[in-house]
Amino acid sequence: MIKAGIIGATGYAGEELVRLLLAHKETEIVWYGSKSYIDQRFCDVYRNMFKLVPQRCKDDDLKALSKEADVIFTATPQGYLSSVLKEEILSSCKVIDLSADYRIKDVAVYEEWYKIEHKSPQFIKEAVYGLCELNRKQVKTARLIANPGCYTTCSILSIYPLLKEGLIEKDSIIIDAKSGVSGAGRGAKVNNLYCEVNENIKAYGVLTHRHTPEIEEQLSYAAGEPLRLIFTPHLTPMNRGILVTAYASLKAKDGRLPSEEDIRKAYQKYYAEEYFIRILDPGVCPETRWVLGSNFFDVNAKVDTRTGRVVMMGALDNLVKGAAGQAVQNMNLLFGLKETEGLTMIPMFP
Amino acid sequence: MIKAGIIGATGYAGEELVRLLLAHKETEIVWYGSKSYIDQRFCDVYRNMFKLVPQRCKDDDLKALSKEADVIFTATPQGYLSSVLKEEILSSCKVIDLSADYRIKDVAVYEEWYKIEHKSPQFIKEAVYGLCELNRKQVKTARLIANPGCYTTCSILSIYPLLKEGLIEKDSIIIDAKSGVSGAGRGAKVNNLYCEVNENIKAYGVLTHRHTPEIEEQLSYAAGEPLRLIFTPHLTPMNRGILVTAYASLKAKDGRLPSEEDIRKAYQKYYAEEYFIRILDPGVCPETRWVLGSNFFDVNAKVDTRTGRVVMMGALDNLVKGAAGQAVQNMNLLFGLKETEGLTMIPMFP
Amino acid sequence: MIKAGIIGATGYAGEELVRLLLAHKETEIVWYGSKSYIDQRFCDVYRNMFKLVPQRCKDDDLKALSKEADVIFTATPQGYLSSVLKEEILSSCKVIDLSADYRIKDVAVYEEWYKIEHKSPQFIKEAVYGLCELNRKQVKTARLIANPGCYTTCSILSIYPLLKEGLIEKDSIIIDAKSGVSGAGRGAKVNNLYCEVNENIKAYGVLTHRHTPEIEEQLSYAAGEPLRLIFTPHLTPMNRGILVTAYASLKAKDGRLPSEEDIRKAYQKYYAEEYFIRILDPGVCPETRWVLGSNFFDVNAKVDTRTGRVVMMGALDNLVKGAAGQAVQNMNLLFGLKETEGLTMIPMFP
Amino acid sequence: MIKAGIIGATGYAGEELVRLLLAHKETEIVWYGSKSYIDQRFCDVYRNMFKLVPQRCKDDDLKALSKEADVIFTATPQGYLSSVLKEEILSSCKVIDLSADYRIKDVAVYEEWYKIEHKSPQFIKEAVYGLCELNRKQVKTARLIANPGCYTTCSILSIYPLLKEGLIEKDSIIIDAKSGVSGAGRGAKVNNLYCEVNENIKAYGVLTHRHTPEIEEQLSYAAGEPLRLIFTPHLTPMNRGILVTAYASLKAKDGRLPSEEDIRKAYQKYYAEEYFIRILDPGVCPETRWVLGSNFFDVNAKVDTRTGRVVMMGALDNLVKGAAGQAVQNMNLLFGLKETEGLTMIPMFP
Repeated sequence: MIKAGIIGATGYAGEELVRLLLAHKETEIVWYGSKSYIDQRFCDVYRNMFKLVPQRCKDDDLKALSKEADVIFTATPQGYLSSVLKEEILSSCKVIDLSADYRIKDVAVYEEWYKIEHKSPQFIKEAVYGLCELNRKQVKTARLIANPGCYTTCSILSIYPLLKEGLIEKDSIIIDAKSGVSGAGRGAKVNNLYCEVNENIKAYGVLTHRHTPEIEEQLSYAAGEPLRLIFTPHLTPMNRGILVTAYASLKAKDGRLPSEEDIRKAYQKYYAEEYFIRILDPGVCPETRWVLGSNFFDVNAKVDTRTGRVVMMGALDNLVKGAAGQAVQNMNLLFGLKETEGLTMIPMFP
Repeated sequence: MIKAGIIGATGYAGEELVRLLLAHKETEIVWYGSKSYIDQRFCDVYRNMFKLVPQRCKDDDLKALSKEADVIFTATPQGYLSSVLKEEILSSCKVIDLSADYRIKDVAVYEEWYKIEHKSPQFIKEAVYGLCELNRKQVKTARLIANPGCYTTCSILSIYPLLKEGLIEKDSIIIDAKSGVSGAGRGAKVNNLYCEVNENIKAYGVLTHRHTPEIEEQLSYAAGEPLRLIFTPHLTPMNRGILVTAYASLKAKDGRLPSEEDIRKAYQKYYAEEYFIRILDPGVCPETRWVLGSNFFDVNAKVDTRTGRVVMMGALDNLVKGAAGQAVQNMNLLFGLKETEGLTMIPMFP
Repeated sequence: MIKAGIIGATGYAGEELVRLLLAHKETEIVWYGSKSYIDQRFCDVYRNMFKLVPQRCKDDDLKALSKEADVIFTATPQGYLSSVLKEEILSSCKVIDLSADYRIKDVAVYEEWYKIEHKSPQFIKEAVYGLCELNRKQVKTARLIANPGCYTTCSILSIYPLLKEGLIEKDSIIIDAKSGVSGAGRGAKVNNLYCEVNENIKAYGVLTHRHTPEIEEQLSYAAGEPLRLIFTPHLTPMNRGILVTAYASLKAKDGRLPSEEDIRKAYQKYYAEEYFIRILDPGVCPETRWVLGSNFFDVNAKVDTRTGRVVMMGALDNLVKGAAGQAVQNMNLLFGLKETEGLTMIPMFP
Repeated sequence: MIKAGIIGATGYAGEELVRLLLAHKETEIVWYGSKSYIDQRFCDVYRNMFKLVPQRCKDDDLKALSKEADVIFTATPQGYLSSVLKEEILSSCKVIDLSADYRIKDVAVYEEWYKIEHKSPQFIKEAVYGLCELNRKQVKTARLIANPGCYTTCSILSIYPLLKEGLIEKDSIIIDAKSGVSGAGRGAKVNNLYCEVNENIKAYGVLTHRHTPEIEEQLSYAAGEPLRLIFTPHLTPMNRGILVTAYASLKAKDGRLPSEEDIRKAYQKYYAEEYFIRILDPGVCPETRWVLGSNFFDVNAKVDTRTGRVVMMGALDNLVKGAAGQAVQNMNLLFGLKETEGLTMIPMFP
């Protein structure tokens, strides 16, 4: 049994990790870390866990935990892990970080967008960006996984194959993303009250959202050169789910623009063998309801011959494939388990 | 492997059965029955099943199915099963009926409340009312299971121990129930459109709802004599979940009214060993969110010494413990499997 | 023009008062009081008011305000008004209090349920309970109006005529109420976050909710003697609306139980002339969606001859007839205006 | 009093027209037309109107109605009005059409996108496109108003000034729009059931939505030449509201790209005097909640110097400024009334 510890277990992503790890056959949770709820029973914080999790929450002691655990998940605010991570921790156990601390290779870019000084840049280089479908090989041997963001996973997976295959103009990308509210976390803020979110849709963080440089960096690897894009997140009145609608100009090849079939082939080239990625049938648009509770990412695209553009669409559950599910997928890779272990939940509808 | 067939697979309860049976280690689905979608792929009707269910829907041929299947689930409109059930079907396989056709022992009561002539009353007597926690023994050897209704399961389990132990006045019971919208089914009706249900709560079927006699019959077994109660269902703007708030007058015993502790002991007497029933800590009220997606039933009660009454509260997921989950629980009992097989899903929150 | 000041203008009830008073032909708002947002523009706190309310919020200075205003509305936490109210304020302007400070005549009962010491009990006696339809005459000449609670208005209006006419047993009343989330206010609490409330229904404050004694007191006037009842509030995932489902045992008169027609006549006797109370057609159940945004209260009842009980149902918008609308109705009465002035908004659907 | 008749009064837009016209001081509704509910009381179809609208629904007899009415509103399916409109009707009363029948000047374009043969193309030329803020002068003297679509109004008003002022590249426009569910109408379709829409967001009609050519035509007038754009509508789980997030490449002028201040000035040039258009403060993004129930359109934009693009954002209530409210605004213009008459409702929040 893999011994797993969770730091930040009482946030929504942390709690989803608990849900997934409890059902995971090869794992045992040894530490429910939560600064806000020390000594309280986890199941009093999340009553869905009543009778399932008798344990109490503990303080965030990464060092102590690293002695007990084989793997540590950190579902903590930006800047936390980078301020406490030490070589001795990484030497004694694997770390999967759900925050953004090690996702961006250029520390200056990180500090500019996050307005935080990075306290342990020495680990950035070795950290592996844990988007399993793209970096599977590197993940397997890593010590430190930078688990991707929810918007990021959805955006990158929607666009990657088209960029990689040179089917779209790299600087023409516009990502219009819509997220459920759980992505905003469980902090008590007026903006996230029921009456403020319900019966409303809004864009937020327009042109300044911190997932932008992460998406740009990863997609630049596909493009083979730097690129810039627009990313606009929207808050949608629903608990879970992210839908990405991304636009780009098609790039002519041999004198003609790529067809919808060309686009489809690009997706298939990279994703045909991927269990968690479902390329939908031609003409079918992804919807968040069809992936809720699962680790699936649904994708498709339509080509507009009128304007020479492609509309790429992707959907996932922000707490699963966008956070905890992907973290478990990374853990499976790290420990040589079947990649789908504990992750075959069927999307729950309605 | 148990071969299972589903008649009415494309309703919400049918689809939830598919979700549960796909994850059930001892079962294989051999028939996706759906009159409305014959020859269409099941995963085109429910796209969450894309890549998981390649099969196409078939017509509702109970006889043919009974040759292929070990167990048939009928998630069909009232009156369907009773009009087609034959001895030869019951001789060749088990039948678990999610409709109300065999739930009520007195055919006259059935016909009065359902306004339908019962076409096969000869099977009513042998049908076992599949509320597993109360009728476990009889379920195991049955051929025909009358799987309880969602409101009914929630109501009966909330009240049964108190009646059985003589702690409440049998004719004082008032059940005020609140249900999510999936209980209304997937039929295209104006009343169930998003804009009609959203931002609204209403009572419906007041004093005439067809689950009333079913609740009365089962509770009368607990009371040891006939009883009458009021049952008021309400439609709540959410997908899943039933919350029952039930009221009754406490019954004096040895010159004093039962205390909250007495009530608690009654619940414990009947439910302490039940995996799927969670008696909440004193003072904690059930909420539907804590059971969603799971087969749990959460229960608790508070005693009002000011008025000499008790408020009983229960919560479950109408599609799981209130329908498909309970049906699988019955199947497990029928086939000698572990009762929790395929049913240990942890409630998903948020 | 009546000069109106609002203390607590940035809560949901306060903001609804602003909406109503802006559209009221005889009123001008002279003070937007808000401790939390002093010197901020009101329209930055509530952007629906952009371009409509240029004013900035001011501190809560009741004395200064009483010099400027003809009427003060206090939409403040329990205990605020009672701690600052003085004779000189009441001498110079009318006060309509949306909190509970002067609703309960017995100060001991107030202090027991609210766990607050009452700082100005000397004003309790003269305060008029501002349920306009029942106390219209006294309202007209009052200085201090105790504007009823939302649950309270809905409960009392649903039950009053039946008690007054002796059609129900006074100690048999059970009120099962369901409220939208705006009733919980705009405070930043985890419990009221979108993801906590959405897809959930729960009872809360079971047997201890502070509207209980207020309902009991008002209904005891109808009954002519003290009474006790059960009141159970539920939090429903919607912004606005309260639905009351109330139960009582019918009281025999001349050897027979009242019929549905008798009940109807009782409602008509008290409400037939009331603009804001709509007695629905026989058999039609109130729904919150049909009153949203309006000052209407919809009511109806069904008689259960099987159990000898009546089910009374009422619906209103908690922020209008349950708070700000009723406050304006009281203001209209206080100043001799048409009672419906500024309150003829048609319910908005969907 | 203006006598108004409504054809299609029992759809959501029709019912909103009823709500607005009942509150309009200069209008009287003389005809509640509804094929589906002939002879039923309007208030039985929409119970918010109980006690407010005693009238019964009538059949759709445009000719008879034109004798009685000064103005006819048609809130009917595409193709209805064009199949019944005659010169004699237009000669005897004004017609405001909420369908798309006369919005598109090029009949071939209409027939291509709507897949309907246009039965009265002779009236297309004289029909005035009723986007009041842009075509106020022509509206005043029209006989036939083509009332714009909801997506269309929101899209055009967001983009028009920037195109007109030459600040953006005409062929770079991408409109990503999000709508509440009431825009889908009250027809009983599985896709619009509560459980299908709730907890979901999806794009639909991708690249084929019929509002596309309408937007293109109107914006081409601003650009002074034809243009093509991408318009992607999304269904959002809320009753009302449309949010447009539109993207375009900035167009260099005098060797530099327009700044956010330049964009702002363009909006102000066209909208500064418009009561119903609110240019938000710099940096503030439109949200649908702030306009619900009102005729306001909120707009703003942000400039991305990194990519040389502008993000334009607009929000309105699809049933008010996107349908019935704009229709009333057109009526006010047609009859020489104050343009805001009956339209000063303050947005209702929450």
